Amino acid sequence: VTSAEPVLVNGVPADAVSSLDRGLHFGDGLFETIACVQGVPRFLSLHLQRLASGCQRLQIEAPDLVATRAEVQSFAGPPGAASGRCIVKVLMTRGVATVRGYAASGREKATRITIRYPWPPEDPRHVQDGVTARTLAMRLGENTLLAGLKHCNRLEQVLARSQMSGESEGLLFSSSGKLVSGTMSNVFLVHGSLVRTPRLDCCGVAGVMRRVVMQEAAAMGVPVEERELRQVDLATADEVFLTNARIGIWPVSRLDDRALAVGPVTRRLQQALSPLLEIPAHA
Amino acid sequence: VTSAEPVLVNGVPADAVSSLDRGLHFGDGLFETIACVQGVPRFLSLHLQRLASGCQRLQIEAPDLVATRAEVQSFAGPPGAASGRCIVKVLMTRGVATVRGYAASGREKATRITIRYPWPPEDPRHVQDGVTARTLAMRLGENTLLAGLKHCNRLEQVLARSQMSGESEGLLFSSSGKLVSGTMSNVFLVHGSLVRTPRLDCCGVAGVMRRVVMQEAAAMGVPVEERELRQVDLATADEVFLTNARIGIWPVSRLDDRALAVGPVTRRLQQALSPLLEIPAHA
Repeated sequence: VTSAEPVLVNGVPADAVSSLDRGLHFGDGLFETIACVQGVPRFLSLHLQRLASGCQRLQIEAPDLVATRAEVQSFAGPPGAASGRCIVKVLMTRGVATVRGYAASGREKATRITIRYPWPPEDPRHVQDGVTARTLAMRLGENTLLAGLKHCNRLEQVLARSQMSGESEGLLFSSSGKLVSGTMSNVFLVHGSLVRTPRLDCCGVAGVMRRVVMQEAAAMGVPVEERELRQVDLATADEVFLTNARIGIWPVSRLDDRALAVGPVTRRLQQALSPLLEIPAHA
Repeated sequence: VTSAEPVLVNGVPADAVSSLDRGLHFGDGLFETIACVQGVPRFLSLHLQRLASGCQRLQIEAPDLVATRAEVQSFAGPPGAASGRCIVKVLMTRGVATVRGYAASGREKATRITIRYPWPPEDPRHVQDGVTARTLAMRLGENTLLAGLKHCNRLEQVLARSQMSGESEGLLFSSSGKLVSGTMSNVFLVHGSLVRTPRLDCCGVAGVMRRVVMQEAAAMGVPVEERELRQVDLATADEVFLTNARIGIWPVSRLDDRALAVGPVTRRLQQALSPLLEIPAHA
């Protein structure tokens, strides 16, 4: 990441935002991280829908979805193999402060920041053979009003990443002992033929890929149950897998000191998802 | 607040920061709000000490305390009545991202943003007669690694302020039912001759004025006990007061539907604090 990354601020090429922006002062904003393949921003409508819904929940000015869609598309490039792959991040803050202090005035004009990043190097074995994951000691705070949102208060994730040492992902529980997610992914557990994922009513991010996987699973006749999950559920899972917008599904092949099989349910879901990741018809 | 507020970014007049700053993306930073009176930044050494300690805890590059002190002093104006009053905010972020994603690389150079704001209008009755406060429904998330820090993940405070309607302050409990603080102040309870304030080991901000009041109370022979406090403790308190760096001590004269006396312990502490607020010798 350098300042050479293409950046639009409210639609205009710019590499800076106001030093009075509430995003900077309070993390008072939301973001989307959109994987773009061959000029197609994957699941763009789902990303925009979540962004709009998040703004509504936080009472941030509603995003201009037409302009946002056009910006993401312009960064993704024209559809076709030549456009390759990139990551486009859209960050919406409440905007420049109109008064000092935490309270919003309600008169703020939201700031939209769109950034293109290169697609990071990937190890194909992560999808094929699975990844190592570790249960992290840090517990996530619980706040129902923030639960599910992809907001910009991410110090917990920053600290969680600093607790990792070589694993591909760290798993997090909440302060009251509920399984929540990975540091940058959602988590699914398979018990026999049952697929479960944590209910995100007290913390966590409701990921776009989490939703897509739940839809695909339901379409396959394997509905995913959203429920409270605890350490015992993780410890007894036959299969564990992780999802996010870029990676799709990563099977977990080692969790702490335990080897896990990359099992049939995970494989079937990967197969169902695969065409959506490579030939993104759902955009 | 307009872009006409004086702002320094890393010591240079500037009204903008990089759109790749981790403060903007993740609230990955800390801040101090320093009340300046007659050219003297009150309790500046305590503020700088907390800033340095916070950076150490979050593994943000250590602040240049000499430069920071000089900036705050320059914004406060030369000592003397003509300088009047202002608020100086120092915001330290981890800096511009060197890699994409939550993980810090450890190579970031911290961004220091110093801003002067006018002293806000004040109602002298708040100090003399007390304020109204309300217990807010929102519960604060608990995270021991963030507890006590004045970090930039402040969406909870933004939401809490939006739940207020005319009261001077809102009181907050944590997800497990512990009394924590006001939205922008620390809280103290008086039971008979005992003075108590919430232990801030799972959430909350360890305010500079909280510390000063604890020191003054100890010097008066009224040591303040830091402990776990719950709804019953708040409900049975004889006196309740609030502290922050600008307001000093606000007695609470109405809490939800209950009238409270502005009692003798609060008055004695206000008297002890008064010279430090008006003739800031402790700077």
